[in-house]
Amino acid sequence: MEKIKRTKVVDVLQRTDFGAVVNVKGWVRTHRSSKSVDFIALNDGSTIKNVQVVVDPSKFDESMLKQITTGSCINVNGELVESQGAGQTVELQCREIEIYGLCASDYPMQKKGQSFEYMRQYAHLRLRTNTFGAVMRIRHNMAIAIHKYFHDHGFFYFHTPLITASDCEGAGQMFQVTTKNLYDLKKNDEGKITYDDDFFGKQTSLTVSGQLEGELGATALGAIYTFGPTFRAENSNTPRHLAEFWMIEPEVAFIDLNDLMDLEEDFIKYCVQWALDNCKDDLEFLNKMIDKTLIERLKSVVSGSFVRLEYTEGINILEEAVKNGHKFEFPVSWGMDLASEHERYLVEEHFKKPVIMTGYPKAIKAFYMKINEDGKTVQGTDVLFPQIGEIIGGSVREENYDKLIGEINERNIPMKDMWWYLDTRKYGSCPHGGFGLGFERLILFVTGMQNIRDVIPFPRTPKNAEF
Amino acid sequence: MEKIKRTKVVDVLQRTDFGAVVNVKGWVRTHRSSKSVDFIALNDGSTIKNVQVVVDPSKFDESMLKQITTGSCINVNGELVESQGAGQTVELQCREIEIYGLCASDYPMQKKGQSFEYMRQYAHLRLRTNTFGAVMRIRHNMAIAIHKYFHDHGFFYFHTPLITASDCEGAGQMFQVTTKNLYDLKKNDEGKITYDDDFFGKQTSLTVSGQLEGELGATALGAIYTFGPTFRAENSNTPRHLAEFWMIEPEVAFIDLNDLMDLEEDFIKYCVQWALDNCKDDLEFLNKMIDKTLIERLKSVVSGSFVRLEYTEGINILEEAVKNGHKFEFPVSWGMDLASEHERYLVEEHFKKPVIMTGYPKAIKAFYMKINEDGKTVQGTDVLFPQIGEIIGGSVREENYDKLIGEINERNIPMKDMWWYLDTRKYGSCPHGGFGLGFERLILFVTGMQNIRDVIPFPRTPKNAEF
Repeated sequence: MEKIKRTKVVDVLQRTDFGAVVNVKGWVRTHRSSKSVDFIALNDGSTIKNVQVVVDPSKFDESMLKQITTGSCINVNGELVESQGAGQTVELQCREIEIYGLCASDYPMQKKGQSFEYMRQYAHLRLRTNTFGAVMRIRHNMAIAIHKYFHDHGFFYFHTPLITASDCEGAGQMFQVTTKNLYDLKKNDEGKITYDDDFFGKQTSLTVSGQLEGELGATALGAIYTFGPTFRAENSNTPRHLAEFWMIEPEVAFIDLNDLMDLEEDFIKYCVQWALDNCKDDLEFLNKMIDKTLIERLKSVVSGSFVRLEYTEGINILEEAVKNGHKFEFPVSWGMDLASEHERYLVEEHFKKPVIMTGYPKAIKAFYMKINEDGKTVQGTDVLFPQIGEIIGGSVREENYDKLIGEINERNIPMKDMWWYLDTRKYGSCPHGGFGLGFERLILFVTGMQNIRDVIPFPRTPKNAEF
Repeated sequence: MEKIKRTKVVDVLQRTDFGAVVNVKGWVRTHRSSKSVDFIALNDGSTIKNVQVVVDPSKFDESMLKQITTGSCINVNGELVESQGAGQTVELQCREIEIYGLCASDYPMQKKGQSFEYMRQYAHLRLRTNTFGAVMRIRHNMAIAIHKYFHDHGFFYFHTPLITASDCEGAGQMFQVTTKNLYDLKKNDEGKITYDDDFFGKQTSLTVSGQLEGELGATALGAIYTFGPTFRAENSNTPRHLAEFWMIEPEVAFIDLNDLMDLEEDFIKYCVQWALDNCKDDLEFLNKMIDKTLIERLKSVVSGSFVRLEYTEGINILEEAVKNGHKFEFPVSWGMDLASEHERYLVEEHFKKPVIMTGYPKAIKAFYMKINEDGKTVQGTDVLFPQIGEIIGGSVREENYDKLIGEINERNIPMKDMWWYLDTRKYGSCPHGGFGLGFERLILFVTGMQNIRDVIPFPRTPKNAEF
């Protein structure tokens, strides 16, 4: 076979130099045969679109052609010609075919229209389907948008540790990390397991958040962001929970509440606009197959301003709604933590646009949030989105050492391993704040997918660590 | 105090609109006082350079000024003036000062010239020093370069799982991840601990490499890269080992040995060139303070071609060196795994440039490497660098199902949890390859730092999981 430099399918489909002989390599999506002509739809993952390879069966070995079934991997030299068919502008008139790998007849992705549940069992092969290819390319693009946004705005990417000896925030149940021999656990006189022989010489877990370490970065480098895996050992079998997920946590020195809300809004709009600008083909596919209002919803997020709403005002609106006959599952009253139904009512029914809520009651938020002058609310800022509910949770941080200690004591938070966090308030403390974005929540929003297990390549959930 | 929008120090130092009143916020690096004038060197992490704030002490409260010691955080409005001093072009004539946070007198980063060992104990505060600020900004830049390189070349960022139930590659000792109650470990009749009550229903660990899952991505999306944390539970207390480190693992379908070596060389040169182009101030500082040959070494890497060397030829060169009286600690013979001294001899003494070595004996390389026609060597490709030794390890992968199974059986690798990996060779197998780059190894090379614990914010090593 003549050696020609490979052209990716995404690039072949842009070419107009008809008559040129090009090389493509990829996996067969479909192979339709008739007496006079074979059509092979070839995909190489570079785009959701296939290139059509038109084969004159009289010029090739019949038994060879017959082997090229869905899922096979082939290498094709062909002449670029204008396409006669609808929905494509170019196709390849096949000159040579080499088979790289045939596909066993029990290929699980053979049939179209399998359920997402079915496909999760074959997470390694579902990546070759239209839907998951689209989701993964969009996921990539969202990661790139995030890095580009922060880099362009002078934030430094900061790697906070995954293995941690602190569990201060109490954000969730943790996975223990150990090299101890479980068959020979050393205990002290009181029968407590000792950890001096464990790898780190103490009990360690997987982090639930990089924020506290992120604050160390921000109070030195000015503005940082994390983008890494985070873990929760909660036994939640829901379409919204993963035991291992990716989180983005920017943290900025010298920021106040308004600047923080500006940052949150600007950042998330940038990401959504990036998808609209850079993932057109994939979004159109998902809009057609998964969620017919997807593109419209993305456009509506970037086009208008977000509502900025005090918690107290939000409660008033919800109470008004109840008075007017709206039924919520959970009762509404000042001091409560909003449930998803409340958030969605405000966003989808009342304002019909994203909401940044602030001024939450101190008691329902974390210890590190800056306390307002009223002494009972804090400068937390949650961004509430249609469909998703809370997509961002952030706050200005309490920079006053004494107030922070007061909260820690009031909540009985064990601070023995947290001396380094308090040091930031002891040595040149500064106003600062930041937020956290669950990456998969963003991907759910941008793809219109319904289950978080379908927007990460290999989901980790209770009883599932396959692949 | 008048509210003026903050300008970052990195931007202030570029401004030439003398007479303008600007606002800067940051941490005091030094404060020198005399009767007639105070000089405050202020840094906000945006650059290694400080902005000099010139204070007329007669215009400010003396006791307030006195409190502003090294490490304090302040907010300054000042007039931009041309600097009289050497080494800076602008300075600020102070108009107003606000103290955000004073610095307790036991501030551990007070004195200059502390050892790196000392500073590691205060990893949360060392970030505020010149050296660690420079290292962290370069680290950020290298991450951005990596994402930009792969994005521009059509690779998709692919998140492989951290928690895994497979330990197939055997690349190193693993950390166990569990939610089991260690005080009440369930065992079966044979006394073996059972894992059906563990979070994932089986025994799980932290990954040592994302490569095998990366191959699943590449054989669907065409070209992917990972960039995430990786773990080794080896009890290695050396300047080169971390228990938790970041790794970049690109994987590409339809690549052959030469393309792979081209990719490795092009990629690493791009990263080094990015540092030279984007981290000038930080590199100049490190070149002056840490390693006087740093910039010269970086330039030499990007300027010439890497040597491409067969393993067998490399052994010949080493044997020749031994004959000519060169002393190695470890003896040289065909079949051995090269030690660092051998790699560095080839790179630093013999060729005086980076080397890509290939054609390694099968027995010293991993099971998945493509076997050459000689049946005894494989298409591994290690990139060997001055100072560092192996900076990249890669290979073309064996795509033939039967050959792969042969290697697995020959090495007695437990494949029970690896059915999904074999599926890539069963359903449309394709030629492919990739490599792994330890991120911290790259940062060591680009910064000239000597200890890997000093190029990651919070190192994880035996007996150390602080912060």
